[in-house]
Amino acid sequence: MKKGLGRVSLVGAGPGDPELLTLKAARVLAECDLVLHDALVPQPVVALARALAVSVGKRAGKKSASQEEILRLMIRAARSGRHVVRLKCGDPFVFGRGGEEMIALREAGIEVEVIAGVSSAIAAPAAIGVPVTHRGLASGFVVLTGQPSDTWRDVVARIAPRSLTLVFMMSLGARAVIAAELSKRGWDPSTPVAVVLGATHSDQWSWRGSLAELGTVALDSNQGSLAGTIVIGDVAALAQTTVQSGAPAQARAGGAA
Amino acid sequence: MKKGLGRVSLVGAGPGDPELLTLKAARVLAECDLVLHDALVPQPVVALARALAVSVGKRAGKKSASQEEILRLMIRAARSGRHVVRLKCGDPFVFGRGGEEMIALREAGIEVEVIAGVSSAIAAPAAIGVPVTHRGLASGFVVLTGQPSDTWRDVVARIAPRSLTLVFMMSLGARAVIAAELSKRGWDPSTPVAVVLGATHSDQWSWRGSLAELGTVALDSNQGSLAGTIVIGDVAALAQTTVQSGAPAQARAGGAA
Repeated sequence: MKKGLGRVSLVGAGPGDPELLTLKAARVLAECDLVLHDALVPQPVVALARALAVSVGKRAGKKSASQEEILRLMIRAARSGRHVVRLKCGDPFVFGRGGEEMIALREAGIEVEVIAGVSSAIAAPAAIGVPVTHRGLASGFVVLTGQPSDTWRDVVARIAPRSLTLVFMMSLGARAVIAAELSKRGWDPSTPVAVVLGATHSDQWSWRGSLAELGTVALDSNQGSLAGTIVIGDVAALAQTTVQSGAPAQARAGGAA
Repeated sequence: MKKGLGRVSLVGAGPGDPELLTLKAARVLAECDLVLHDALVPQPVVALARALAVSVGKRAGKKSASQEEILRLMIRAARSGRHVVRLKCGDPFVFGRGGEEMIALREAGIEVEVIAGVSSAIAAPAAIGVPVTHRGLASGFVVLTGQPSDTWRDVVARIAPRSLTLVFMMSLGARAVIAAELSKRGWDPSTPVAVVLGATHSDQWSWRGSLAELGTVALDSNQGSLAGTIVIGDVAALAQTTVQSGAPAQARAGGAA
């Protein structure tokens, strides 16, 4: 660490359950001078910090700090000798812009540490009893996000149907498009699918069905555009869900990565 | 929970650093009556248990309990009213047979809880500064294992070169085969590659190079067959490694999933 400089810890807050925070994340939260956290990080996790904690992430209907503002804030605080914790849902390096922040901080001469977290990519399926790998059913898994669609369309076009578990994060709004695209690419309409909202939160909601039904999963009007995890592949048949039809979701959506 | 019955917690121990254990894992370790742990779970993690802790996983040169014996042991202990923690490296549902154990325990009428852990699939790349997703470089990632080769060969044959980050777990022994196969499938020999052994352990070792060099990464004779993580894709160029040539590894290998 350069003399006189503070530092930044990019920290994963886990999927939602405050107990899925790591011991290391809990320690730096208790020790640091400033916390900048995603809006969706649960309050009990943020409350572990003794220092000032500021919500900087996107939240529906609220104005949020831009990525540039967040970076400026982190750099200024670190340069004045402070230890800043940038607390992100899930893992900071899974669709969390953690890599971009790490690079920008390094370029500004700030020491950066990355503290991995439990990712929803694995923990959201696990929360309904679905292993992303399973002998005889899935010899690996692919993690994608539904927006923008160009990126995942190219990818799934090349994946052999049912050879891997597909995990789509923050993609519930794209469920009909994903279902249609996979069907077009030769995925069997009977392929098992599971959906989880608010995984590991106390109000977790989940659904199990088939690829043919995915496009028609009914959610409350304000939930259709919210984050959630979609698991597609034979392992999804193992899901122990709250709903096994198109009944509306009652839970709030989790945005963890 | 059925009256008189105990239960089993399938728990992820994280990638190696004892501080990457979750708060929940630390709690159940302190509370449980028996721990059955993989041989590669670090001693400081196992030491959190007050109860008897037994190593049951595979370890080079040592006889280990078979999967059937481990299951029998868990079922017997749970039936006698005990809370058993089955502690696995990384996350229990990523190449850890966690799904198989969950199903077998449920079939035996035992209550099972899954406690997700930080997976090496994401944390091993992160430990050398590599985000598995990164805007403009990787819009998703695939997690595979190198053994047996039939499973991953079919998969990579269908993935468009460089469209996703490939993470091969416990695959260091297959590095030459993986490099040859990807080259044959049209992956550019200059594609960045990073290798991590013992990620997040105090003796972590890492290497950065290209796909063309991957097959020739030199390791100590007793390390070539050991577990490690291989990251292939443009994000691997961000790696901050201890070695950037074929110099022998000095670190021990981690087997976390």
